[in-house]
Amino acid sequence: MEHTNRVVTLLTDFGIQDYYVAAIKGVMLGINPNLSFVDISHTVPPQDIHSAAFTLGQAFSYFPPGTVHLAVVDPGVGSERKALAAVAGGHFFVAPDNGILTYVLQKEQGAEVVHVTADHYFRKPVSPTFHGRDIFAPIAAWVSRDVSLYQFGPPLDKWVALKIPQLIRVRENLLQGAVLSMDRFGNLITNIRPEDVPAYSAADKKPCKALAAQREITDFRATFAEGGAGDVFIVPGSTGYLEIVKRDGSAARELNLGPGAPIGIVVS
Amino acid sequence: MEHTNRVVTLLTDFGIQDYYVAAIKGVMLGINPNLSFVDISHTVPPQDIHSAAFTLGQAFSYFPPGTVHLAVVDPGVGSERKALAAVAGGHFFVAPDNGILTYVLQKEQGAEVVHVTADHYFRKPVSPTFHGRDIFAPIAAWVSRDVSLYQFGPPLDKWVALKIPQLIRVRENLLQGAVLSMDRFGNLITNIRPEDVPAYSAADKKPCKALAAQREITDFRATFAEGGAGDVFIVPGSTGYLEIVKRDGSAARELNLGPGAPIGIVVS
Amino acid sequence: MEHTNRVVTLLTDFGIQDYYVAAIKGVMLGINPNLSFVDISHTVPPQDIHSAAFTLGQAFSYFPPGTVHLAVVDPGVGSERKALAAVAGGHFFVAPDNGILTYVLQKEQGAEVVHVTADHYFRKPVSPTFHGRDIFAPIAAWVSRDVSLYQFGPPLDKWVALKIPQLIRVRENLLQGAVLSMDRFGNLITNIRPEDVPAYSAADKKPCKALAAQREITDFRATFAEGGAGDVFIVPGSTGYLEIVKRDGSAARELNLGPGAPIGIVVS
Repeated sequence: MEHTNRVVTLLTDFGIQDYYVAAIKGVMLGINPNLSFVDISHTVPPQDIHSAAFTLGQAFSYFPPGTVHLAVVDPGVGSERKALAAVAGGHFFVAPDNGILTYVLQKEQGAEVVHVTADHYFRKPVSPTFHGRDIFAPIAAWVSRDVSLYQFGPPLDKWVALKIPQLIRVRENLLQGAVLSMDRFGNLITNIRPEDVPAYSAADKKPCKALAAQREITDFRATFAEGGAGDVFIVPGSTGYLEIVKRDGSAARELNLGPGAPIGIVVS
Repeated sequence: MEHTNRVVTLLTDFGIQDYYVAAIKGVMLGINPNLSFVDISHTVPPQDIHSAAFTLGQAFSYFPPGTVHLAVVDPGVGSERKALAAVAGGHFFVAPDNGILTYVLQKEQGAEVVHVTADHYFRKPVSPTFHGRDIFAPIAAWVSRDVSLYQFGPPLDKWVALKIPQLIRVRENLLQGAVLSMDRFGNLITNIRPEDVPAYSAADKKPCKALAAQREITDFRATFAEGGAGDVFIVPGSTGYLEIVKRDGSAARELNLGPGAPIGIVVS
Repeated sequence: MEHTNRVVTLLTDFGIQDYYVAAIKGVMLGINPNLSFVDISHTVPPQDIHSAAFTLGQAFSYFPPGTVHLAVVDPGVGSERKALAAVAGGHFFVAPDNGILTYVLQKEQGAEVVHVTADHYFRKPVSPTFHGRDIFAPIAAWVSRDVSLYQFGPPLDKWVALKIPQLIRVRENLLQGAVLSMDRFGNLITNIRPEDVPAYSAADKKPCKALAAQREITDFRATFAEGGAGDVFIVPGSTGYLEIVKRDGSAARELNLGPGAPIGIVVS
């Protein structure tokens, strides 16, 4: 299959109105014409590294190994923040060192990360305001041509990591979780898995309730379609985590909750 | 041309902010790396099967035969609604059985439809909330690898069909039509063809008027550019149907009309 | 590399909700299955030729020579405006003759432009409201198959050109420039280059101030990251021009300025 294109995914906050994403793709095609681009999203909330990190941590794993993932949400552009290239779980990543790879590097054992310093790979002159085009895009394109990561700079042992809320067992019958992300439908994705909650236990199902924004949610359902119109309930989401959802509406708006908000689970 | 990529189009209501579309593409690339994706739209109004069906019915026909069309607007995800794979007019379709293929199957004679039941083709575990990723995407990818439809399940004779408003000749000089769809400019696409209306007859042109929302529209023009600023008039649209348009504005807003609204045509 | 796909970029004001862009891509794939599409933007403000021309003039240059650029912002569709095919700087362009190629043709010496008249290349019947699909898309696809431009029609010496604001040196210490464009962050892109302004001179740096909307801006910085939250200042932008920006906000909204607005530069 030597003519198969190499897949490069893109995740940015550049929006879809301006030409910035196209400039990045053009630069990459100049280095490797055999690329297939897949846009993960370009409408991450501007400069929201937490959202971007969650999105990337979910999205990359659906692609085949060998995929190159270019992630540029970069409020520190032009400052001294490092540029990173990494390989983790057979996937390649090129991104600023600002925490955007947190979920990826937490999930994959044996990741290798390098600090990109070899500026002869950069597009010149490097714009101080658009490293996406002049640094990250060319590095991603050279990665797609199988240049070894160590050609780009020295290995890096410490990189910036975001603090991801962890699930805590406060008492035997009380779990303290949190909202990790919300999607455009207003579904609230938590850090709690079905297997953490006895309501979903096949063997020993027990009634549970979720405490969110001073409200009790007692419906733990198997599918979205089971809910009645307007109901707020909990379902195992497609990410592998529980989601708080509202049938035909936005749970985020109904509960006035967003990423970071605490969610308690009480087992009766 | 053995290295030509196979084209897969995508039509969903998943939006462009989240990673859901990328997950679907990643899953497909894992099954067939030789794919070229073309997005039809991911901003169909959420769960609006009628809009999606109209859009798909228009869009598919511009692609070359052999194209695989994946359409996932799926309010019934997780319920008992069937999954379909179909071939019609040389094109392949993978979609939920909820009417989204209505325009396609109405337009193309000799369509073959199967009920997808062969779950060894699915991505496991199948999320009850994301069949797009776990059922429809893998099936579409296997279709693109030329697996016969009958490998996916038994033929199906009856599928869900939407009720599409038909043009009715009420009297010799009165036609009763309807708005089928509107686009983002606010142009109202009707189910009336130029050849149905004597105003567009080359041989025997007669004055006509359209009745829409208690308003009479008497301008039947050949092109959009003929209208003056702010005019509301009728033109033969690019779909082959007449459209009610407003030059430099939204006819839908001006007339407060949308899909389903009745449109009368009176011949003087 | 005979199997490398040919790259076609697309720039339109068709939006992302309707199927119009997909129809264009489908038509092109029917003529040349070996295409890779890159969307520059489909959310140019409707019928805004100035925005589209600026965007195209910036975007095309990042792509490798041989790229075909299809630009359809076409308020005159259905009127007598010409269709153009052009080669400039090794890139190919297909567009209406309404000024959308102004920046491209101004930048590249030795451009060749033809008036597209050979209607046997068109998709029939040609819709009077959708030349993008029926004229421009097929021509672009045939260009991508290396049909000579002169097969499409006769050379054209005069084409529609937009009036682009030029930088004027009013006095030794006063430059009169203008805003060319704004991006979705509200950054105002001017027609003034860093080398025009002594504040950015390495050899002989002099204090300067910019006059914009009756306000003086005295901060000329090297990078975006140097600004404090809420500051309005000037940076060399990624286009090669100076930009007026607001850290964590919109300079366009703060100053109530947009494309065409005059900007003075006074050297102290």
